[in-house]
Amino acid sequence: MDEGTGARNGRFHTPHGILETPVFAPVGTQATVKALRPSDLTDLGATLLLSNTYHLYLRPGDELIRDLGGLHQFMGWDGPILTDSGGFQVFSLSDTRQIDDDGVTFKSHLDGSYHRFTPEKSVAIQENLGADVIMAFDECPPPTDRDYVQQSLKRTHAWAERCVQAKTRDDQALFGIVQGGIFPDLREESAQFLMGLDLPGYAIGGLAVGESKADMYATLDVMNPILPKDKPRYLMGVGAPEDVVNGVLRGVDIFDCVLPTRIARNGAALIKGGRINLRNAKFQHDPAPVDETCSCYACTHFSRAYLRHLVKANEILGHILLTTHNVHFLLELVRQMRSAIRQGELASFAADFLSHYPVVGPSQAGL
Amino acid sequence: MDEGTGARNGRFHTPHGILETPVFAPVGTQATVKALRPSDLTDLGATLLLSNTYHLYLRPGDELIRDLGGLHQFMGWDGPILTDSGGFQVFSLSDTRQIDDDGVTFKSHLDGSYHRFTPEKSVAIQENLGADVIMAFDECPPPTDRDYVQQSLKRTHAWAERCVQAKTRDDQALFGIVQGGIFPDLREESAQFLMGLDLPGYAIGGLAVGESKADMYATLDVMNPILPKDKPRYLMGVGAPEDVVNGVLRGVDIFDCVLPTRIARNGAALIKGGRINLRNAKFQHDPAPVDETCSCYACTHFSRAYLRHLVKANEILGHILLTTHNVHFLLELVRQMRSAIRQGELASFAADFLSHYPVVGPSQAGL
Repeated sequence: MDEGTGARNGRFHTPHGILETPVFAPVGTQATVKALRPSDLTDLGATLLLSNTYHLYLRPGDELIRDLGGLHQFMGWDGPILTDSGGFQVFSLSDTRQIDDDGVTFKSHLDGSYHRFTPEKSVAIQENLGADVIMAFDECPPPTDRDYVQQSLKRTHAWAERCVQAKTRDDQALFGIVQGGIFPDLREESAQFLMGLDLPGYAIGGLAVGESKADMYATLDVMNPILPKDKPRYLMGVGAPEDVVNGVLRGVDIFDCVLPTRIARNGAALIKGGRINLRNAKFQHDPAPVDETCSCYACTHFSRAYLRHLVKANEILGHILLTTHNVHFLLELVRQMRSAIRQGELASFAADFLSHYPVVGPSQAGL
Repeated sequence: MDEGTGARNGRFHTPHGILETPVFAPVGTQATVKALRPSDLTDLGATLLLSNTYHLYLRPGDELIRDLGGLHQFMGWDGPILTDSGGFQVFSLSDTRQIDDDGVTFKSHLDGSYHRFTPEKSVAIQENLGADVIMAFDECPPPTDRDYVQQSLKRTHAWAERCVQAKTRDDQALFGIVQGGIFPDLREESAQFLMGLDLPGYAIGGLAVGESKADMYATLDVMNPILPKDKPRYLMGVGAPEDVVNGVLRGVDIFDCVLPTRIARNGAALIKGGRINLRNAKFQHDPAPVDETCSCYACTHFSRAYLRHLVKANEILGHILLTTHNVHFLLELVRQMRSAIRQGELASFAADFLSHYPVVGPSQAGL
């Protein structure tokens, strides 16, 4: 714990190693973090990867991955892996789905074929994949629609119980997902229910899906004193640097997001205070690196002018280098925060870092 | 020299280091070898890269590269670089061009704008780029059309003289390009003319553009005793492994080709005797690496099943890993040939290697 903030520097034991938190997990949707090799991720200091149940179930198939030794061996990553439940993708990627209290029938975004996920099916797939942390199957409702969120909570809670029942492997940690949108009473109700299941970790779901940053941070302020202090807390799908800092200040331990890898493939590089897009004509002759202070391979070897050329020419190396930089940015950020928490200096570190970003809402977690 | 074959193990001095030959140059068309970082190329043992004058002139522009310190600094490669003259691309990529004795007017394949290359312009661009080895501007005629080839030789020879005249930098080696199609007398005529210019190296151009392998090898047999023994010989655009071996047996020192990188992006991996395509359904469950005997990063870490998944899912890592394997294949091949030449064992090495490929024509260079 850091004096004066909610930040925690913890150690979470998994079958593939101990995770020091706060931790940011790069996303390897299809069993690969786009444009990076596992050895690159190790070099960058990545410790935890996230992969997607929905995608791997559809292609190449979770049974194939199981037969080839599980996801770690399949993708050549020997560190901890977390898989989501597939629920979020079923709702966001499939253009046709039908939800009932038993589960969801949906159409594959790849070939239009029909499939059905239930809590039991999600757990079975995640057991085939074999990640260290697996997630309860949940519904992710629109966070500001109170009636929908309230109805949906019952289903999410029933599904969580069914996931616990369905689970057969004892080497995977099943996390529950607290829902409740932006409504403090519903968040508390959801947390209390899931805490009753005595799970090894809790995710805060349903955020970063359209609500304001102020609402996101306020919800984290609600969750922080409720969730158990001795278990990891995972803020799903959050990876904007200012959100990660604000999450850590509010007691979050684990983050994942496609942001650093996705914006890289659009030509954008994270810098303190925002991002720059290398497509911009002003970088055409710029001999400076993306960030003079950055120690990543891209910034220590190449100019903005060269990166702009790669991006404009649609060269794979542009994706590689910008992905490297952006993943490094987030991993370096959590590294610095872990160190600052240990030194009792997180409040000043965070205040300095966040001073480069727009002020959000009235609360800055006591800064 | 290897006993009984024409093979040579030489050392070619450049401002960016000594090249040990035979050498294979991966191609970095747009100032990047597609899907590899410079550090990856170093790790793979690449010593020489080729880059394309035509592409870099159009984008990002040779003057921009000059202003940013030249091609080595721009692309972060501190070893030797060879640039072609742009001639071949003008003829093969531009859909509209008009050739006369002074030069070629052509339409950009990028934006349809009109441009003109002359021998003087090609040298000026290559001086801006700053490669260690630059090439004379030549015409690459259809190799089996004797009348065209004969007419074209005059132009190629006059252009070579103009390139020598136009050259102003003394830290770049200008190679001449022997043309003459598949016709021994024209090849000899071209070689004798260019040798009269006393250039530091000679390329054999106009091959691997549609003629048979037997014709290619026969032409190399013609060139071998004619070209000066003490200067490097460069077989342009050749990179099929069996052609590289046959080239070395016939006295060739330098090769370049997009083959290993291009077929990688189509899902194909080089193996001794041919290639396999990872799209093939038979690899879906295959836990073996592409090549059990290969020491590259891809083969020591990943299964064919995983590579197939990456290729099918169009993941960048698929391009990275297959490019790594294919470039390694060719670099390892020339490494083994250099060693075999030093040991006086090239004939048996080549006989064994070529036994995996179809026999071509009556001659196997004395094997």
